[in-house]
Amino acid sequence: MNFINAIESSWEKNDSLLCIGLDPDINKIPAHIRSMNEPIFEFNRAIIDATGDLVCSFKPQIAYYASSRAEQQLEKTIEYIHMNHPGITVILDAKRGDIGSTAEMYAIEAFERYQADAVTVNPYMGGDTLDPFLRFKDKGVVILCRTSNPGARDIQDLESGGEKIYRIIAAKASREWNYNGNVTLVVGATYPDELSSVRTTVGDMPLLVPGIGAQGGDVEKAVKNGRNSKGTGMIINSSRGIIYAGKGKDFAEAARTAAMELRDEINKYR
Amino acid sequence: MNFINAIESSWEKNDSLLCIGLDPDINKIPAHIRSMNEPIFEFNRAIIDATGDLVCSFKPQIAYYASSRAEQQLEKTIEYIHMNHPGITVILDAKRGDIGSTAEMYAIEAFERYQADAVTVNPYMGGDTLDPFLRFKDKGVVILCRTSNPGARDIQDLESGGEKIYRIIAAKASREWNYNGNVTLVVGATYPDELSSVRTTVGDMPLLVPGIGAQGGDVEKAVKNGRNSKGTGMIINSSRGIIYAGKGKDFAEAARTAAMELRDEINKYR
Repeated sequence: MNFINAIESSWEKNDSLLCIGLDPDINKIPAHIRSMNEPIFEFNRAIIDATGDLVCSFKPQIAYYASSRAEQQLEKTIEYIHMNHPGITVILDAKRGDIGSTAEMYAIEAFERYQADAVTVNPYMGGDTLDPFLRFKDKGVVILCRTSNPGARDIQDLESGGEKIYRIIAAKASREWNYNGNVTLVVGATYPDELSSVRTTVGDMPLLVPGIGAQGGDVEKAVKNGRNSKGTGMIINSSRGIIYAGKGKDFAEAARTAAMELRDEINKYR
Repeated sequence: MNFINAIESSWEKNDSLLCIGLDPDINKIPAHIRSMNEPIFEFNRAIIDATGDLVCSFKPQIAYYASSRAEQQLEKTIEYIHMNHPGITVILDAKRGDIGSTAEMYAIEAFERYQADAVTVNPYMGGDTLDPFLRFKDKGVVILCRTSNPGARDIQDLESGGEKIYRIIAAKASREWNYNGNVTLVVGATYPDELSSVRTTVGDMPLLVPGIGAQGGDVEKAVKNGRNSKGTGMIINSSRGIIYAGKGKDFAEAARTAAMELRDEINKYR
């Protein structure tokens, strides 16, 4: 089963477009977890078990692990999801990008070492740097298009030949780079007009949509502008708003409540 | 001492603009090293000791370590350079880029965990994603501008308002992003005209120049088009052409010979 089919199944399985970002900042993890032997893994496990029936995906952001020398806990986290929540996809958020021989190594990192179902990549270096990822037919390649941060406009909104760069990326993604049918794009919830404009260009292609919650994106606008013709097509990520919903011993229950609310709010507008 | 001063000192110390890329592919390492306990570190150590007096920088590419679960050997490699070859700068080639809170984690990864003197970053997400790196005043931030691969043209060569994207990046890098005087740009040797065009825009700013050797860049053209007003200003990288110059027990001597030849060839045209 390739990533696009897997994500479609996971939307259906849990009736959810919600993705939870596993971005465990060691300084924000509850004290009783912080003192454990593998605090990041234990934190993640509690969040995963509390929310695994409410999401379509989990998305660990690798910088949170790399900055803490916690690669092994990332491996364990992804393995734990595959073993205990089969059918839920794992997107490794790494935003990799490099020339061909190096990109191959990054693809091995994401898909073989970490066993992720998909990885985020940066298109600035061009199509040949995406090929080593795209060649993994069963894996998803999630290409940055229009990101959720204010500085996104610096490059992505520049116009070339009457089209903004992010729209050129969207067109290339759907026409040139999707030769194995495994491409997905990142479009931030904080810019609903851009979301709608990308949706028009890419048909029913799934979009990974960050920016809900801490970053201020509006759920109703994001869903109405980003959904595809089937009322799905979105992997809507929230990280801090869910994993830090509670700060004490009940953090996992608090995460479950926050996840359920957000899933249901998303479903209202599908 | 900040990175720009450090790189200037290292150019002078070894009369060299050469940077060696430490991209150890476990399948290409000589057999007698491959059987050791920490083969990647041992391979690097031999290359470093054989060439440390001929270079201005070493540039480990993190994908080669991450794909082999060898983060610890990367830490040891960088520590080894700092301890045994003081004055030689270390550029961590990671091409990171993400929103602010995550970019901070990547900056911690590069500068605190790995103790790199500089890190490569991708500007596609915009200026606010570079700030967490730029805030480390003493560290170098090496921003992708015009890369050495054929696909570089897909995005970097698009024109916006009469200027190509890579030239817009060069202008922003020197006018907006260099507020701490720690910015450097990546410009490939394979496109000497682009190198010359960036040089004109950025004054004496150091440029990291990959693409010599295996990728086919011409040394004479690269140096003549990329040097600054002082006959320096370039960190010219070669990876495969040096570290795999020999395949047997004499691989380190072969690397030394290849490094010396390339350093001297570069110096002919400064």
